[in-house]
Amino acid sequence: MSLDTYPAFPVWMGDIQSRTEAALGRALPAAESIPARLHTAMRYSTLGGGKRVRPLLVFAAGEITGAHPDTLAAAACAVECIHVYSLVHDDMPCMDDDVLRRGRATCHIEFDEPTALLVGDSLQSLAFELLARAPHTEAARQLEMVRLLAHASGSCGMAGGQAIDLASVGKTLSQAELELMHALKTGALIRAAVMLGALAGSALSTAEHDALDRFAKRAGLLFQVVDDILDCTASTATLGKTAGKDAAADKPTYVSLLGLEGAKSFAAALEAEALDCLAGFGDRSRRLLELTAFIAHRQF
Amino acid sequence: MSLDTYPAFPVWMGDIQSRTEAALGRALPAAESIPARLHTAMRYSTLGGGKRVRPLLVFAAGEITGAHPDTLAAAACAVECIHVYSLVHDDMPCMDDDVLRRGRATCHIEFDEPTALLVGDSLQSLAFELLARAPHTEAARQLEMVRLLAHASGSCGMAGGQAIDLASVGKTLSQAELELMHALKTGALIRAAVMLGALAGSALSTAEHDALDRFAKRAGLLFQVVDDILDCTASTATLGKTAGKDAAADKPTYVSLLGLEGAKSFAAALEAEALDCLAGFGDRSRRLLELTAFIAHRQF
Repeated sequence: MSLDTYPAFPVWMGDIQSRTEAALGRALPAAESIPARLHTAMRYSTLGGGKRVRPLLVFAAGEITGAHPDTLAAAACAVECIHVYSLVHDDMPCMDDDVLRRGRATCHIEFDEPTALLVGDSLQSLAFELLARAPHTEAARQLEMVRLLAHASGSCGMAGGQAIDLASVGKTLSQAELELMHALKTGALIRAAVMLGALAGSALSTAEHDALDRFAKRAGLLFQVVDDILDCTASTATLGKTAGKDAAADKPTYVSLLGLEGAKSFAAALEAEALDCLAGFGDRSRRLLELTAFIAHRQF
Repeated sequence: MSLDTYPAFPVWMGDIQSRTEAALGRALPAAESIPARLHTAMRYSTLGGGKRVRPLLVFAAGEITGAHPDTLAAAACAVECIHVYSLVHDDMPCMDDDVLRRGRATCHIEFDEPTALLVGDSLQSLAFELLARAPHTEAARQLEMVRLLAHASGSCGMAGGQAIDLASVGKTLSQAELELMHALKTGALIRAAVMLGALAGSALSTAEHDALDRFAKRAGLLFQVVDDILDCTASTATLGKTAGKDAAADKPTYVSLLGLEGAKSFAAALEAEALDCLAGFGDRSRRLLELTAFIAHRQF
């Protein structure tokens, strides 16, 4: 594709976000199908909001391996279902007890606690069903994608990071401990999004796979550091979720550890390292480069 | 195998239960691995108890298609992880708020609520990881198994049945409504266990598949009817979980709908129907026959 016809990043981003929204809309059971309250709540929590950072990463990484857009849409929906399930469960009273998410009442506030629990549980099941139904890919590849997403979601990935986070409240963590926590809590799923996108297409060489994995780890950490900065600098209205809650909950963050300026310098260094990992991919990694810059400099 | 060397049912059952326990012990992360509290709680909730009815069904159905025992062990662990995750979440204060399970304190009592939430979430992820790693099977078969278990677990299966159950408290349901609820809540996973066991081996003809599926639906319903009978006739000590809690919670059961004798007659009819579905399989279905009788006549 010539540079002239290559859509600008904001156009591409808007297109992927629309595609993801539409694909999720089709993937989720109809609101009126039995049990209607559960299905209504699943759609409420999943549709109509969110930056769709993980789906964007899936599609951007898919450009590297020339993956089919329908395979990428399935992978993007799967990883977003896992992300949304984690938000719904994290917002519950026994966890962060939050009332605002994506500018709206959280699931247990809009519906009720048992429904929120079942929404999260059901979204996780749906994620694996969608991945196992992804079209235009080989069965062995798809199984690898299921293994990757399952491992990234579980006790040695995202849910494990949550557990470390819970145990860390009120404690002073070192940067190494904080990085381990976030490498699991946020990083594992960000990394999975990148690797799922790549797995959806043709095979990478070992060197390429390793370079992409190094990129994905840095991108995950970068996303978290920027989140911590925004949690302390942006308003609740801008974020669409409660601002300043990490500090209020006495949770360790990169800002509490490094100070605001230190956290910003760390983010800049991570961005440079992440971009450096993509050097060998040439123009195929253009969307990932642009997306990394977007993640680093977003204001919400 | 001659009848002389064919182990008696209780011997076979004990063997499968031991194998399942050992396989789960290997599949679960070590208790001391980070995050240790989460992994300890996952092991506490999963190991050392339970009748392992679903793993028994997986292995019994696997005899019909000559499945490899290691494939069956992976499928058995996966379906048991889904079952245990559902118990851990169902016992939480926002759901059934129960303190006793398998003769021990429930997960959120022994640990805490956030840990119980993450234990359930992590066990679900682990289930799909185990299934996607099952050995001695074809990738396309494995994907079919992932789809089957994911669908049976989610909002159109087990979790959906939970949602209907929640909505039914204090209401009078018809037998058709009660059967729909249990077909999802308990039946979907029982059925998945049978079909996963069969999928782990050689292919069934369409007629055989349909006969096994009819069996599996009746076995799932039978299991629930017997559960309702035991909930009203057995003691908490015998059950290892709080007895009489459905009646106390004003939940509709087969006993409340049909009376105790009516429920017993219904169970006997279901048992006969289930056994009838197996007629075409000959000696290959011997374990499923024995297991059905066990499910129908168990005292705990």
